[in-house]
Amino acid sequence: MSKDISPKKVSESKSVMTEMVMPNDTNPMGNLMGGNLLRWMDIICGICAGKHCEANVVTASVDHVSFTSPIRVGDIVTLEATVTRAFRTSVEIFVEVFAADIKGFNNRKCNHAYYTFVALEDKNKKPIPVPAVIPLTEIEQQRFNSAPRRREVRLILSGRMKPEEAKDLQEYFLQNKL
Amino acid sequence: MSKDISPKKVSESKSVMTEMVMPNDTNPMGNLMGGNLLRWMDIICGICAGKHCEANVVTASVDHVSFTSPIRVGDIVTLEATVTRAFRTSVEIFVEVFAADIKGFNNRKCNHAYYTFVALEDKNKKPIPVPAVIPLTEIEQQRFNSAPRRREVRLILSGRMKPEEAKDLQEYFLQNKL
Amino acid sequence: MSKDISPKKVSESKSVMTEMVMPNDTNPMGNLMGGNLLRWMDIICGICAGKHCEANVVTASVDHVSFTSPIRVGDIVTLEATVTRAFRTSVEIFVEVFAADIKGFNNRKCNHAYYTFVALEDKNKKPIPVPAVIPLTEIEQQRFNSAPRRREVRLILSGRMKPEEAKDLQEYFLQNKL
Amino acid sequence: MSKDISPKKVSESKSVMTEMVMPNDTNPMGNLMGGNLLRWMDIICGICAGKHCEANVVTASVDHVSFTSPIRVGDIVTLEATVTRAFRTSVEIFVEVFAADIKGFNNRKCNHAYYTFVALEDKNKKPIPVPAVIPLTEIEQQRFNSAPRRREVRLILSGRMKPEEAKDLQEYFLQNKL
Amino acid sequence: MSKDISPKKVSESKSVMTEMVMPNDTNPMGNLMGGNLLRWMDIICGICAGKHCEANVVTASVDHVSFTSPIRVGDIVTLEATVTRAFRTSVEIFVEVFAADIKGFNNRKCNHAYYTFVALEDKNKKPIPVPAVIPLTEIEQQRFNSAPRRREVRLILSGRMKPEEAKDLQEYFLQNKL
Amino acid sequence: MSKDISPKKVSESKSVMTEMVMPNDTNPMGNLMGGNLLRWMDIICGICAGKHCEANVVTASVDHVSFTSPIRVGDIVTLEATVTRAFRTSVEIFVEVFAADIKGFNNRKCNHAYYTFVALEDKNKKPIPVPAVIPLTEIEQQRFNSAPRRREVRLILSGRMKPEEAKDLQEYFLQNKL
Repeated sequence: MSKDISPKKVSESKSVMTEMVMPNDTNPMGNLMGGNLLRWMDIICGICAGKHCEANVVTASVDHVSFTSPIRVGDIVTLEATVTRAFRTSVEIFVEVFAADIKGFNNRKCNHAYYTFVALEDKNKKPIPVPAVIPLTEIEQQRFNSAPRRREVRLILSGRMKPEEAKDLQEYFLQNKL
Repeated sequence: MSKDISPKKVSESKSVMTEMVMPNDTNPMGNLMGGNLLRWMDIICGICAGKHCEANVVTASVDHVSFTSPIRVGDIVTLEATVTRAFRTSVEIFVEVFAADIKGFNNRKCNHAYYTFVALEDKNKKPIPVPAVIPLTEIEQQRFNSAPRRREVRLILSGRMKPEEAKDLQEYFLQNKL
Repeated sequence: MSKDISPKKVSESKSVMTEMVMPNDTNPMGNLMGGNLLRWMDIICGICAGKHCEANVVTASVDHVSFTSPIRVGDIVTLEATVTRAFRTSVEIFVEVFAADIKGFNNRKCNHAYYTFVALEDKNKKPIPVPAVIPLTEIEQQRFNSAPRRREVRLILSGRMKPEEAKDLQEYFLQNKL
Repeated sequence: MSKDISPKKVSESKSVMTEMVMPNDTNPMGNLMGGNLLRWMDIICGICAGKHCEANVVTASVDHVSFTSPIRVGDIVTLEATVTRAFRTSVEIFVEVFAADIKGFNNRKCNHAYYTFVALEDKNKKPIPVPAVIPLTEIEQQRFNSAPRRREVRLILSGRMKPEEAKDLQEYFLQNKL
Repeated sequence: MSKDISPKKVSESKSVMTEMVMPNDTNPMGNLMGGNLLRWMDIICGICAGKHCEANVVTASVDHVSFTSPIRVGDIVTLEATVTRAFRTSVEIFVEVFAADIKGFNNRKCNHAYYTFVALEDKNKKPIPVPAVIPLTEIEQQRFNSAPRRREVRLILSGRMKPEEAKDLQEYFLQNKL
Repeated sequence: MSKDISPKKVSESKSVMTEMVMPNDTNPMGNLMGGNLLRWMDIICGICAGKHCEANVVTASVDHVSFTSPIRVGDIVTLEATVTRAFRTSVEIFVEVFAADIKGFNNRKCNHAYYTFVALEDKNKKPIPVPAVIPLTEIEQQRFNSAPRRREVRLILSGRMKPEEAKDLQEYFLQNKL
């Protein structure tokens, strides 16, 4: 495997997406449908993952997402995606969603999510190793450190790990922080 | 509140959606993008929730979703959504995703997910009580029973419950079943 | 031709589609445009035909369709497609359209239509034989029996049969039932 | 009713639409799906009907449509819609479909159809009288003359007329021309 | 190069497009967004260019476009594209935009634009010679004559010509006509 | 007019949009159609203009745009929009377009454009004064300084100024810089 997979900084693959909420994106009450936001999140996270991995990627999972702040038709939605940590052939991407009205007023954070992607070889579409992530800022370091815990939750929830094997997660229940 | 909220059977709101995967739904490798599937899931779950609640609903959350079986351009995707349990003003919806090629071959289960929706009053858009769910079959009963545990996970993950308060979830780590 | 074309039951290819009427699907008066419904009908009928024929299919014709019950933006539209009868290389599909509002109220049958599809070989795209249909219920048997009459109308309307050759249709004018 | 409904020539409302067949308009074999063509036909016929009636219109029906000439992705589709005849509150629109490749080669007529539309009052959405049609050319006169026969077929097929009442249609079976 | 590039009349490639302004085409104030109009202009001009050149074409440029007359949701937009003049491997297309409401009222010219396209060979995608334009009417002749001036502006604005080399443009500043 | 229109920095309204080129965005040769890029440019420029003006805005014009670098299906397109200068009731927005493949390779600037927007009052939709722009960096200052010249070109091209009145533009022909 001669592909260059030297570690990269988070900033090298940070990706930003801006969308205006159109009528067809909303439910009959005029609010952005959750599924449309999940779709936009997936696209910008995939772009971020592809850039970090320098490879084609496919969505492997999305963690729990809450929708608390309604987003209205005509609002401007900004999504910022950054890589948090790389595992052997996959990466975890963190995405934050902000919204404001067309005049820039009522700017607010709406929600966030963690997506994971697997990098695939172009031809045989088999998983390939990905570059490590170099966290620099404090918040990048925090997300880097907590990534293995979130990974254990995923492995348990998808039936690939038994709860009693989840060492980081057990620690979480003792220390009350995810 | 004169609205009729007498309990309903699961079958009364079961909703089925069939989609053909079009080129624009896929990534450059020709696979359905995860975000598009999340969007379809959200729509059919919302339809199911609206029917059960007899009310306008908004997505409150989606639990962890894994994508393991690639779905190809031209494939037929079938989504089946059923209500599992109602809480005071919200419902949990279970959705299963199946795919097959255009000839009906290679029929397979792709994944599943749990979405939650809040029922809202038409005018003031405040949460309103929803009908209870009457589970009849064994699998309906199982999903009904495990719903409170999943709800605790959501409350913890969205920061509205402390892990030590999650009685059902603690039980889960002892009994190894979600 | 080693392809398996043993007869199939109607239930084996029954296909259900659910759509929420979005703003872009409607005319300026807020009603679902007829052409959008025709498009959805075509998709679900094509899916049903492909499943029955175990082959790629193309639309050959649609019979007369009336639009009597207006469908509103935000309504939930359910389309149910079933095969009625197979001819040598084509199948007739019957589709019924139901609508209700988002709360499940005002549930009503809107209209129905008959589409025909031709099954094509993958490579040379020439018509191929299709499996026969096994009608089981009374209504399935009725639609099976009346299919040749509808086929004669199509052949006449598309200029491939002279009216005086249409034996079943002549009978129709005597017996007043289509 | 002070609205001006003086008769109009066919040319006054003739409407032309040109579309390029995009990947999402096609089935997995790369042919334009019949339902998409039906949708485009409906839109351009509705535009033509609105212009003739000087009113909002809704699709009342589409007659039998055959699809014989496959249209490929990248092809240019031209639809020409003209009013053939007005009844009291409705109009019949004739639409012809032509296709050619992007270079203008292989120009061919693909199919045609008759749509009917009802004109509605803006406020109460009740049917309103529409202007008569003045046929000028020979072909316009032919379509004008045969319109009542087609209307009888529609009334029978939608169950609003008994076959024995269809005088024009009976004549058709004697004279072999629709 | 055996391809036939004998001169063609303007009328041979004239192309007309009609669109109904849908909710998703508009901004929150209910007006057609300028960018959507630019997109429709590009499509119909490209169709016109492909027909004249009998070749695949790609957009090379669009000249200054002003938007003065707002177009409302539900309005019918008609775009008419004609070739004005051919250069060695490119053509200039003129497009006029008209709008009216659904009843055909308030018919007005909204704006116009000049697009240029380059004709490409199918395989190697290199520019190929295109047929000359034969202007017949007075207005066709005028647009034919003024095309070289507009071309000089483009070459200057894209940095491929120095202002002092633009002989036609200098004349324009003396004679006050573009 | 009590609305706050104190001057703003360029950075306060900078807007970034990222899009993945989908099959339906491309012509039959697999290249992003120019019109789609013009549409994306218009959206992100409008978002930037709305944020700077703190008002609803409508597109007034787009200046000459050249398309030189083909963008392929699957490519990631990034658009960066910044305000350059405000006039009384309008703003000029500069947008740069960059593209790269999904792996982040072949990163290149594709083109740029100047759009202008008019700010409108919410109710009567009449133009309203907009905040001035405070240019800080050298390039921001350059675009600020050259804005009046570009404005004169627009006024001439849209027939609202005579060439001999265009003082800045005359200077341009002497000094050879736009």
